[in-house]
Amino acid sequence: MDREPAGARVRRRIRAGDLAGPTAGEAPGSVQANLVVLPSALAHDFLRFAQANPRPCPVLAVSEPGSPRLPRLGEDLDVRTDLSRYRVWRHGELVDEPTDVRDVWRDDLVAFALGCSFSFEQALIEEGIELRHLTCGSNVPMYRTSIPCVPAGPFRGPLVVSMRPLPPADAIRAIQVTSRFPAVHGAPVHIGLPERIGIADLARPDYGDAVAVRDGELPVFWACGVTPQAVIAEVRPEFCITHAPGYMLVTDLRNAALSLG
Amino acid sequence: MDREPAGARVRRRIRAGDLAGPTAGEAPGSVQANLVVLPSALAHDFLRFAQANPRPCPVLAVSEPGSPRLPRLGEDLDVRTDLSRYRVWRHGELVDEPTDVRDVWRDDLVAFALGCSFSFEQALIEEGIELRHLTCGSNVPMYRTSIPCVPAGPFRGPLVVSMRPLPPADAIRAIQVTSRFPAVHGAPVHIGLPERIGIADLARPDYGDAVAVRDGELPVFWACGVTPQAVIAEVRPEFCITHAPGYMLVTDLRNAALSLG
Repeated sequence: MDREPAGARVRRRIRAGDLAGPTAGEAPGSVQANLVVLPSALAHDFLRFAQANPRPCPVLAVSEPGSPRLPRLGEDLDVRTDLSRYRVWRHGELVDEPTDVRDVWRDDLVAFALGCSFSFEQALIEEGIELRHLTCGSNVPMYRTSIPCVPAGPFRGPLVVSMRPLPPADAIRAIQVTSRFPAVHGAPVHIGLPERIGIADLARPDYGDAVAVRDGELPVFWACGVTPQAVIAEVRPEFCITHAPGYMLVTDLRNAALSLG
Repeated sequence: MDREPAGARVRRRIRAGDLAGPTAGEAPGSVQANLVVLPSALAHDFLRFAQANPRPCPVLAVSEPGSPRLPRLGEDLDVRTDLSRYRVWRHGELVDEPTDVRDVWRDDLVAFALGCSFSFEQALIEEGIELRHLTCGSNVPMYRTSIPCVPAGPFRGPLVVSMRPLPPADAIRAIQVTSRFPAVHGAPVHIGLPERIGIADLARPDYGDAVAVRDGELPVFWACGVTPQAVIAEVRPEFCITHAPGYMLVTDLRNAALSLG
């Protein structure tokens, strides 16, 4: 019998009800992904939006219409059962946070798996770079910027960024390291001057938790996977499923396999 | 007859006395190099110093003792005649600025060609990045830092850096681009907080000319080829030849060939 990939083992535990919590730290080295499920009537515009905005919306896989499977990310993978918590949205309103979406699945749904910063954070940690929000045990601070995404069909809105404070030498190394990972947001979009991208106060993030930027550190900003969720919330599609924040889709892809170099 | 490389053509013009000025802009795309010539008694320590400090001292080629030839950089190349202006130093004092050093050449001399920022500046310009000192027609501003080089034998001293002001998005792109060129100083060593590396006043460079850092720009600092010259000036070797600033060794190497990617 083949050795079961670490990601497949996590998904099997979730399907069996043996793993109910957030997925940070599960199956280390495996790519975790953001999940967006939309009716096929919106799927093409959403994919065009992602294609035009690859930094916030790096597409790892797209399902066949009606299919809950993403075989490139895991042979057995079923997006209806393999996440430990979902969010179900109707006309832009959050209506449920179930642990299984088989009962609301439809034949016209298309699933998108989008890259997540967990992958590049692992690469930064392996370089010995301190990530303040992890040290603090908090969520990374995220901000809506004045940088507009490229619109596609009804999808439009501002770029959302995550911020990690770093000493300059670590910031330079982090730019090099994350440049190798375009499939999971890639290089930073900004460094050092938050007011130039419409961020008035670093202490008041729009999502996540504030962290201290100390003397001798620069704030470094990466495009963030919350961008598509914020954009979808404004479009208010009649139906949509996403992962619940922190409860990601764990795949069989390896973070190292996403690296260009 | 083979087509003559652009670098060889420049060297031939210099040897013939037809090109007497600085070499910026000559043989575009060809690697230009810093020249350091030292007695063989010091050559090993200097090479160890360069090996331990590859950012400021990227070695492109080293001659056989007593030989003025660097065949890796040009088949016909002769470092005694192929630069348009030299500096001759005795015990740390500048004693002459000749256009030919055949009459002071010695059997124990070793020539070092070190990478120069002209190569990565070309790559930045091709990305559409404005380099302020070029816009201003001035020399790049350079600063002695509080960062010590790794010593080797008598060679020791502070890292000297060059500074280019850039908007944050250009700074990120410049870090990516110059990371591909480790043979010509590579990625920046610092960004954004000059006081953290011992630079009190950007308006007062130690070498070169000051340039404005405008609102919305960050100062970005690269290790600089002036470092070995500053270090040699402190060691005061009994004899030394260098290029005169701006009068570089033009080689047959192509800038593009130095790129990692």
